[in-house]
Amino acid sequence: MAIDTVDFASTGGRHELVGGSATFASLAAGLFTDVRMVGVVGKDFPQTTLDTLKKRRVDLSGVQIVEGETFRWHGRYNEDLSARVSLATHLNVFEHFHPAVPAPYRSSDLVLLGNIHPSLQAEVLDQVEKPKLVAADTMNFWIHGTPNELRALLSRVDLLILNEEEARDLSGQRNIARVGRELLKMGPSRVVVKQGEYGAYLFDEHGPFHAPAFPIEDVVDPTGAGDTFAGAMLGWLDAQGAITPATLREAVIFGSAVASLCVEKYGTEALLNAGKDDIDARVGAFARLVRHEHAPA
Amino acid sequence: MAIDTVDFASTGGRHELVGGSATFASLAAGLFTDVRMVGVVGKDFPQTTLDTLKKRRVDLSGVQIVEGETFRWHGRYNEDLSARVSLATHLNVFEHFHPAVPAPYRSSDLVLLGNIHPSLQAEVLDQVEKPKLVAADTMNFWIHGTPNELRALLSRVDLLILNEEEARDLSGQRNIARVGRELLKMGPSRVVVKQGEYGAYLFDEHGPFHAPAFPIEDVVDPTGAGDTFAGAMLGWLDAQGAITPATLREAVIFGSAVASLCVEKYGTEALLNAGKDDIDARVGAFARLVRHEHAPA
Repeated sequence: MAIDTVDFASTGGRHELVGGSATFASLAAGLFTDVRMVGVVGKDFPQTTLDTLKKRRVDLSGVQIVEGETFRWHGRYNEDLSARVSLATHLNVFEHFHPAVPAPYRSSDLVLLGNIHPSLQAEVLDQVEKPKLVAADTMNFWIHGTPNELRALLSRVDLLILNEEEARDLSGQRNIARVGRELLKMGPSRVVVKQGEYGAYLFDEHGPFHAPAFPIEDVVDPTGAGDTFAGAMLGWLDAQGAITPATLREAVIFGSAVASLCVEKYGTEALLNAGKDDIDARVGAFARLVRHEHAPA
Repeated sequence: MAIDTVDFASTGGRHELVGGSATFASLAAGLFTDVRMVGVVGKDFPQTTLDTLKKRRVDLSGVQIVEGETFRWHGRYNEDLSARVSLATHLNVFEHFHPAVPAPYRSSDLVLLGNIHPSLQAEVLDQVEKPKLVAADTMNFWIHGTPNELRALLSRVDLLILNEEEARDLSGQRNIARVGRELLKMGPSRVVVKQGEYGAYLFDEHGPFHAPAFPIEDVVDPTGAGDTFAGAMLGWLDAQGAITPATLREAVIFGSAVASLCVEKYGTEALLNAGKDDIDARVGAFARLVRHEHAPA
């Protein structure tokens, strides 16, 4: 959970937006199912946001509110939003955070481990019982900085979700088919490789599945799109009741659809305003994007 | 039509392979329909290849065989085949080439204008009657070198097919949705943007359509993949008898499928050996790649 300041070359700065992986993922999952959030904020985190999360099906009993300031990130995007740099990262209350999973959470069926130190991700897993699916995100920082801890974690993960660059780094391969094959050897039985504007791949024993990123003319803010993808994917999956190769693939489409809504507004604004109609319309447009028979014969 | 020498960092060099846009595109189109080829070769071009083309449904009466050497290209790929450089290009007999369209070709329904000077592309159009669809490829060299001639040509083109980098260059946009919109304003009522390993987009008045590139673990030689895509797309379309939004979209899938076969062998080898079963199998695998309901429920 974070407070972000983001500079956009063409539209100026956005100061102190509510953000963070857990916030985006929880709001996205909350569009489909009840969510149990684990995280930490400082006393400065806006109470209105906490109230909003609760109204959005997000249980906050696992969110610690402690003395000090919330994690802060300051980033800058280039003109066409194709790249960003981090100007400042202040861990603040996150520095000494240890996730504590409340007792009522422990029987959760689906667990999404956000992109933190793999040992902290493992701590969360130690506190849950028998989830049907454990999903995890990671990043280059852990791939290079804590490779042993990450490898140990991967043996406990069912669904690894990561960016293409990170997937290449972790697998030592460049070709996407080889990337998928190598990552599946590391433990997870399913791997999702997020390719940003080029969509996402799911790899499992039933072969590759691909969903494009929905083409948006007016991308406003890509921040949180990847977390939104993962949250929507797992939230939608939870709402289906069954985790099958087919529902996992459909979940990738819902993840892509909700992520495409997210980037049309700053920060979490789109997720806060998305209704069932918006999601249905975007998923429908998705079908026309990949199915030739939806066009006039 | 060319003779290519290609260096591969990991698998060594391939000397004097038969290649060229027209060769790849004609062989690919010939998998589906009768093809009428226009081009030029020198006396050094292998007669066996000409014989093979004829057997592959390719009419060569528009191919000039003249004194001198065939166009030659020498290129080098990097280790992971993600990039290549041109080491040498010898125009040879291509330098003074003017396409001459034989009388029996002039009533062709579909015309594919290969990537040559836009004034030569226009010369071809001047020699055909009323095609149902004129498709054209182009490249950065013409986008920057002959912008006025290219703009004039585009007003006569129904389907523009080009690489993403070239599409960005020509449109002045980076975002794929904006690229598509801007290119449609330049004349063609349909635009295909080839994204290499990320697949291809079709834009027309019915909205965007996307097909991924089929993920191939053992890419051997990417040379000619884009030309194969265009040739297979038009060849398949011609075999359908009707050009509709739906058949155009399905043609993109067939283009992608045949291109994915092409890169599994050096030069034109895969196209020469591809049978109906291979194509059907790849198109079937394509359906599983983008349709969630093809996986076990």
